[in-house]
Amino acid sequence: MRMYDLIQRKRNGGVLSDDEIHYMISGFTNGEIPDYQMSAMLMAIYFKGLNEKETLTLTLEMAHSGDMLDLSPIQGKIVDKHSTGGVGDKTSLILAPMVAAFGVPVAKMSGRGLGHTGGTIDKLESIPGFSTTLTINDFIRNVNEIKLALVGQTQDLAPADKKLYALRDVTATVDQISLIAASIMSKKLASGADAIVLDVKTGSGALIKREEDSITLARTMVKIGKRAGRKTSAVISDMDQPLGYCIGNALEIKEVIETLKGNGPKDLTELCLVLGAQMLFNVDAVSSIETAMDQLRELIDNGSALKKFIQFVKAQGGDETAIHDTSLLPSASITEDIPAPGEGYIIKMHTDAIGAVSMILGGGRQTKDSPIDLSVGLVLHKKTGEFVKKGDILATLHANDPKKLLAAKEKLLEAYKIAAFQPSLPPLIHEIIL
Amino acid sequence: MRMYDLIQRKRNGGVLSDDEIHYMISGFTNGEIPDYQMSAMLMAIYFKGLNEKETLTLTLEMAHSGDMLDLSPIQGKIVDKHSTGGVGDKTSLILAPMVAAFGVPVAKMSGRGLGHTGGTIDKLESIPGFSTTLTINDFIRNVNEIKLALVGQTQDLAPADKKLYALRDVTATVDQISLIAASIMSKKLASGADAIVLDVKTGSGALIKREEDSITLARTMVKIGKRAGRKTSAVISDMDQPLGYCIGNALEIKEVIETLKGNGPKDLTELCLVLGAQMLFNVDAVSSIETAMDQLRELIDNGSALKKFIQFVKAQGGDETAIHDTSLLPSASITEDIPAPGEGYIIKMHTDAIGAVSMILGGGRQTKDSPIDLSVGLVLHKKTGEFVKKGDILATLHANDPKKLLAAKEKLLEAYKIAAFQPSLPPLIHEIIL
Repeated sequence: MRMYDLIQRKRNGGVLSDDEIHYMISGFTNGEIPDYQMSAMLMAIYFKGLNEKETLTLTLEMAHSGDMLDLSPIQGKIVDKHSTGGVGDKTSLILAPMVAAFGVPVAKMSGRGLGHTGGTIDKLESIPGFSTTLTINDFIRNVNEIKLALVGQTQDLAPADKKLYALRDVTATVDQISLIAASIMSKKLASGADAIVLDVKTGSGALIKREEDSITLARTMVKIGKRAGRKTSAVISDMDQPLGYCIGNALEIKEVIETLKGNGPKDLTELCLVLGAQMLFNVDAVSSIETAMDQLRELIDNGSALKKFIQFVKAQGGDETAIHDTSLLPSASITEDIPAPGEGYIIKMHTDAIGAVSMILGGGRQTKDSPIDLSVGLVLHKKTGEFVKKGDILATLHANDPKKLLAAKEKLLEAYKIAAFQPSLPPLIHEIIL
Repeated sequence: MRMYDLIQRKRNGGVLSDDEIHYMISGFTNGEIPDYQMSAMLMAIYFKGLNEKETLTLTLEMAHSGDMLDLSPIQGKIVDKHSTGGVGDKTSLILAPMVAAFGVPVAKMSGRGLGHTGGTIDKLESIPGFSTTLTINDFIRNVNEIKLALVGQTQDLAPADKKLYALRDVTATVDQISLIAASIMSKKLASGADAIVLDVKTGSGALIKREEDSITLARTMVKIGKRAGRKTSAVISDMDQPLGYCIGNALEIKEVIETLKGNGPKDLTELCLVLGAQMLFNVDAVSSIETAMDQLRELIDNGSALKKFIQFVKAQGGDETAIHDTSLLPSASITEDIPAPGEGYIIKMHTDAIGAVSMILGGGRQTKDSPIDLSVGLVLHKKTGEFVKKGDILATLHANDPKKLLAAKEKLLEAYKIAAFQPSLPPLIHEIIL
């Protein structure tokens, strides 16, 4: 078998067999197939695509390219959740304690992520003392004891994905549905959960902006999950404006705590209930989605979800007092309110630009070794559809550097589009793929 | 400037500026742009193409990536010729002495080539003593003295093309018109001739098989040549069957000598006259193509062309006696006549397969360091359109290895297609692009 022939076949619109995909992924992972052939293949895939069977095989080969996490010592069916990412997305931190409080084990691996804020791990690290470097034994013991643990992703999980992603990232081959699906699902399959819920974002702040593409991605991933024997569903959720009001690592932890107390933003709370209900349903812990949503709401109302969060923070070394008194979380030295430049309805928020505001302030990382400022970010006061008068506060910026603040302010004003007419708002939940 | 952005733009169907192409080619040549980014770019170009301006810029950048040969010490306008390659193509060896005998200087750089036979240099090396490793001074002196010299291609001519071609060769990105045009023309421009004639083959034995693609390639190259200030034209010639009757290094030298004596195959002789006339016309040595063809025919008839060939062979160390007595050229130990398996018209020759026969016998090289057997090959007796009875000899194989002979025989019989009806024959010259 020669990689050349596989590139040529794919380039000509042909199909790769299971054996060929195995040869390609194992050869690439162990270094026998050079980067320059794989990048030509990736570009050919960008143009010619992969069919359903090829995508499934690619995913399984990537999942098996390294360790497959064995979570069998954990009692009960384990559920995992993945989001394709968006601005202000802190759902994992609310969902995980909610579902664990229900009694369903959540054993989560997370990354640090590149983007406008750090990933789930960075956000948690804004709680003094919190650690995500658990041994696998401590990880499993925690899940068995309190139904919830969260650990940083290990090097040996789906190494083919790690290597492939690094190559896609520098060769303009990231935004291809099959490759995105295989990348996400290979890690999910390797990390050993019995059931998976996918939050696929759509809109101006999402990786995939067009709704039809988001639906295709979601359908592809759900099929892969099911064929791999994991009960899987996907929620297509709106990312045409930020989720909730807070963007920034410590700022988002504050909003997580408020939401777990029942005082969270409506959109964030609702999305967490929808995703949480899917999680419970996919491990057969409830008989219907409606019941599940009611029961999860009750866990917030009666304080169980917050209690579980505190238990989780303590179990991983975090300082409980910072949850009760969020002024102990990292906070920025400068805050500045940004007033509306004119009167009218907010008809559009350029959500990528809102994310960029956090990035400019230092809340995200450009490369995987960049430092990150956990205290900075922004709190929105007005979102799409709301009416503002000139001088009303649109958002408050939290900064540590006056220069960055200036640039962030400019970016923020670009992101809001204000006009005389009232816009129609997209639904929060576009579709659910079962 | 970032290579990533250029890949993404081309992938999306955008256009690269002159500065960007300069950045890309100089960065790739000096190693700053890695192979894996360039191969993704090549695949994007495969799908999205390059426009006329991009192709010209790419060619010029590649031509200037190393030494530009300075042929100004040569008296008179110098003409070069390039063929896209085909089975039995030995035209350069006939054309060069013909044109030199007319008085127009031919200063030719040639490669060894991969394929069913070696390149022009290998063929010449079947003449005992012949050497193509001349110093640049000897090369120029020979052209000034006898109007003709031929030298192996140096490393420093268009190094970007060398590096790019090696990458295209392993990433299935060879067969793209703009890239082929830039590769050929960059070397032609760097090797310093004032005028260029291109022989673009079309049909089953050509690199480019479809006539419309051959025409596009020819038009692209002619435009590049003209914009670079070289009078350039292209002949689209038929390669739906082999050119002449002999295929194999020493066997082709024999056919060259016969053709220079006026006893050559009709197709080979005619193509040489057409290409030769274009060469003379492009250096303004004649007033019309018709006159040129007549004058070239006269140089064969009166023995001047053969005399020039002998002069050329001697000037580069070759043994003149092998020209007078071709039994002194390398010859194979076994010859076998292959009879027609049935009666009918030869309606088709799979010309690539005929080339493969020579390859199987050992007449070509698979990789650039493979050994090559100069003595083996085949002599055709029947070509497309001819009627054969069962048992008539189709071809004679010249071999040194009985096993290879067996495989070659099988391949040869696959290559001939015999049927009851008389086929229509394509013209030898499909089109001339001025």
